[in-house]
Amino acid sequence: MTNPYANGLDKNPANYVPLSPLTFLERSAFIYPKRISVIQGEQRYTWKDSYARCRQLASALQQRGIGKGDTVAAMLPNSNAMFECHFGVPMSGAVLNTLNTRLDAEAIAFMLTHGEAKVLITDPEFSAVIKDALALLEGPKPLVIDSLDPEFTGGEALGEIDYETFIDNGDPEFAWELPADEWDPITLNYTSGTTGNPKGVVYHHRGAYLNAASNIISWGMPPHSVYLWTLPMFHCNGWCFPWTLAANAGTNVCLRKVDPTLIFGLIKEHKVTHMCGAPIVYGMLINAPAELKTGIEQTVNGLIAGAAPPAAIIEGAQNMGFNITHVYGLTETYGPASVCAKQPEWERLPIDLQAARNGRQGVRYHMQEAIAVLDPVSLQPVPWDGETMGEIMFRGNLVMKGYLKNEKASEEAFAGGWFHTGDLAVVHSDGYVKIKDRSKDIIISGGENISSLEVEDVLYRHPAVIAAAVVAKPDEKWGEVPAAFIELKAGAACAEADIIEHCRGHLARFKVPKQVVFGVLPKTSTGKIQKYVLRQQAKSALAIE
Amino acid sequence: MTNPYANGLDKNPANYVPLSPLTFLERSAFIYPKRISVIQGEQRYTWKDSYARCRQLASALQQRGIGKGDTVAAMLPNSNAMFECHFGVPMSGAVLNTLNTRLDAEAIAFMLTHGEAKVLITDPEFSAVIKDALALLEGPKPLVIDSLDPEFTGGEALGEIDYETFIDNGDPEFAWELPADEWDPITLNYTSGTTGNPKGVVYHHRGAYLNAASNIISWGMPPHSVYLWTLPMFHCNGWCFPWTLAANAGTNVCLRKVDPTLIFGLIKEHKVTHMCGAPIVYGMLINAPAELKTGIEQTVNGLIAGAAPPAAIIEGAQNMGFNITHVYGLTETYGPASVCAKQPEWERLPIDLQAARNGRQGVRYHMQEAIAVLDPVSLQPVPWDGETMGEIMFRGNLVMKGYLKNEKASEEAFAGGWFHTGDLAVVHSDGYVKIKDRSKDIIISGGENISSLEVEDVLYRHPAVIAAAVVAKPDEKWGEVPAAFIELKAGAACAEADIIEHCRGHLARFKVPKQVVFGVLPKTSTGKIQKYVLRQQAKSALAIE
Repeated sequence: MTNPYANGLDKNPANYVPLSPLTFLERSAFIYPKRISVIQGEQRYTWKDSYARCRQLASALQQRGIGKGDTVAAMLPNSNAMFECHFGVPMSGAVLNTLNTRLDAEAIAFMLTHGEAKVLITDPEFSAVIKDALALLEGPKPLVIDSLDPEFTGGEALGEIDYETFIDNGDPEFAWELPADEWDPITLNYTSGTTGNPKGVVYHHRGAYLNAASNIISWGMPPHSVYLWTLPMFHCNGWCFPWTLAANAGTNVCLRKVDPTLIFGLIKEHKVTHMCGAPIVYGMLINAPAELKTGIEQTVNGLIAGAAPPAAIIEGAQNMGFNITHVYGLTETYGPASVCAKQPEWERLPIDLQAARNGRQGVRYHMQEAIAVLDPVSLQPVPWDGETMGEIMFRGNLVMKGYLKNEKASEEAFAGGWFHTGDLAVVHSDGYVKIKDRSKDIIISGGENISSLEVEDVLYRHPAVIAAAVVAKPDEKWGEVPAAFIELKAGAACAEADIIEHCRGHLARFKVPKQVVFGVLPKTSTGKIQKYVLRQQAKSALAIE
Repeated sequence: MTNPYANGLDKNPANYVPLSPLTFLERSAFIYPKRISVIQGEQRYTWKDSYARCRQLASALQQRGIGKGDTVAAMLPNSNAMFECHFGVPMSGAVLNTLNTRLDAEAIAFMLTHGEAKVLITDPEFSAVIKDALALLEGPKPLVIDSLDPEFTGGEALGEIDYETFIDNGDPEFAWELPADEWDPITLNYTSGTTGNPKGVVYHHRGAYLNAASNIISWGMPPHSVYLWTLPMFHCNGWCFPWTLAANAGTNVCLRKVDPTLIFGLIKEHKVTHMCGAPIVYGMLINAPAELKTGIEQTVNGLIAGAAPPAAIIEGAQNMGFNITHVYGLTETYGPASVCAKQPEWERLPIDLQAARNGRQGVRYHMQEAIAVLDPVSLQPVPWDGETMGEIMFRGNLVMKGYLKNEKASEEAFAGGWFHTGDLAVVHSDGYVKIKDRSKDIIISGGENISSLEVEDVLYRHPAVIAAAVVAKPDEKWGEVPAAFIELKAGAACAEADIIEHCRGHLARFKVPKQVVFGVLPKTSTGKIQKYVLRQQAKSALAIE
């Protein structure tokens, strides 16, 4: 049998071009040169400005010998410079490594060394940490560039040159090139690494392009959306939203600090239509004074992720008039790679049931190929019974290239042709995935599994609670028992007995926390509660008792 | 210098999956099993139904030995079967060849032979032509399957089996596979071939996937759109909209016949939000009786292409309350590959100037990499002066694999790393492309170029004209002169002198037609006026004179 399609239909420069999100910037600058791309305080940039400045950045980097295979690190807030780095750095051929601005000097020094950063672009807000980190470096020091944002005063300029002067040396018409291969690296993102050294997750141009598009399609984002940067851009490259905004020809509203007064002010002033964040961000907004919330004329669409959102937060956001969509993903999956796609019949449910539906991790993102809950050993799917737990796994083009210089970790992560998330979940009868816990967060009490999330969900429903975390506390009799750490709303008062009583009303007795600790909860830079800190605390408490 | 990204970051089954639009069907069936995918007369299919039926089709084809490298031809209207072929055929590994239902037996026989079709799925409406075409085949005959649509009575069943019985043999759980390579062929589309044999344009899975997504992003299509099939699905695979609708989890409203009463009825009944078509389709709607047009509650978004829309048609559609967007492309570019992206300031212009702006071919589609107007010899871009003509060329992932079994034509089409469209255009000062003519449609009179489109634009503004075409007429003195062919609105009357007078008011004297012929204009199946027929007529007219 002959195959008429076998010959003469090959790739050539006219019909095959590597996918890269950099092309979205060029397109918006070409078509919408005068539209506002970035708002930062009193400053305004147009798409034409942004493109010219990103080319200048790329050109200036190349003048310093930076190019393919080099890493450029950025310790920046959600500023215009940070937005530009997402384009200008890869346009030079280099890889952007966005650093978590809340890390300490040791962690930063580890990342600069491991990632072999040749350049570091930094903001004076973080000068104390960066100064110490630079002092810790044993090898060659990177070129340090200070990004001086008029929105911030204080800190110290540490670098050889400031960002504006640096890019002034670059050519706004710089003839940047697409990567030779869409599989080439575009960014490097270190995982938070609660145990051991952080791992360097490498993204490729193909995945960044596809997730930029998937954000638009999966969320139904209309062209020219106004996006408020409540989510850190250093976190999974802001879930790929710098590239999404370029494809969307929308407007980035910069935000240095997650503060309700600031956020509501910007939402009203710039008619923000879209934002993303962890539950803690929405929690702050929900609990903000009512006068801040009045006067929003447009619908604000919010993606929520970073931790499974308690039902009370989803419900609260809805009550506030926000249209919240829950997404799920990890650094390794370019941020969101599943979405709790809404069903029309949910709208007829009571709001607490709606919130429960929307609180699930859901189904695959448009451009991710699969999410599955599998037995971690056999890789067989669990039944859709809402009860049998397995590990969430992903497969598709929204999965990282691998961990930098860590083939062992990459091989483990990709074992059996699936990316293993480490999150435990069930599948409901409609095929929607619901996280029960991180593998390490599950509490095993007298042989029974207790989902810490289930207990937290109940705690969040208590009117005095603004944040809650439940961890395993070692117990001689039961092996482990749940311990609750609770942060109360401003002005609220509550006793341990109230909390226990509340839990007994909603949970089987063995799931009720055996200990309740009140105080401010430790959180990561992305708003995740640091359970490993609490776990240590629960353990030491045992030692004292 | 070491490159830390050089090793250990390779593709594997967890992080690399070939792009294919088939995955969109699986996704919508999984997430929205009960949503309506297809409406055909009284029949309704859900996304779950559609997925099961497409798997049955793929399975039944494989049972007949059909698979990779095989062609399955379809001579079908805009029916549910045609929609299913866009998924079921490539799920079997085969390539779908949609046939233009208005072609004659010789052309169909050529395509079946050249494409080496192993299977032909056909509708009784076309049985007379297909019967003759099959009789013309010299080689082995394809397996013929009759698609019997209750919406049509008449014609003849020609096949060995009917479509419903055929797919009944297939397994609704069939374990279809993605293509091994996203570059693998998915469909075959013959160009209309006004001269010489038609050429077989081969699409790949990657391009079909990307244009399906690009339609959503470039048009700003919200999820769950209701799409009316006014555009033939056989034409560039309906501009990739069968796949777009699967990604969108929208609803396909089938339509066997472009008829204003039918169209307005369906728009109202099913609350259609989106449709596509050639200017002639919109012209029919604009000129329909006013009572048909009343009672549309939703905005109907229309893409228009297939021929540069005269300003009067864009203006008329707007007056009717349709939100029209002009796109441009060719069979070789998966249908639309550029869009006349709207600018906010256009809304403040008088409607005729708005229409002129919207009548341009515009800028690149989101997922096409480039559109350019180049000197066809030097491949240098023309200046953005709105005057200098060059040839429109495309580059990117929305360009075909090539022409089937025609390496010479493919090489010519791709010369210099650009796909050559054969369309002549200028670039305006804002970078928007405006077609002046097909290379072969330009009229050269006394050494001056006359754009036939410019003259047609003026003719369409005459209140009595419903369709107009201008072609070159050989002339002893001038070389060529413009001749106008005009179709009048029902009941309208008009003399040659009126038309000439009207043109003199709007055109330089040398551009005014020297001859005006009234009558029904010959059109292709996609509504394009067949200028080559008129050109012949203009030539013979000369012979007679």
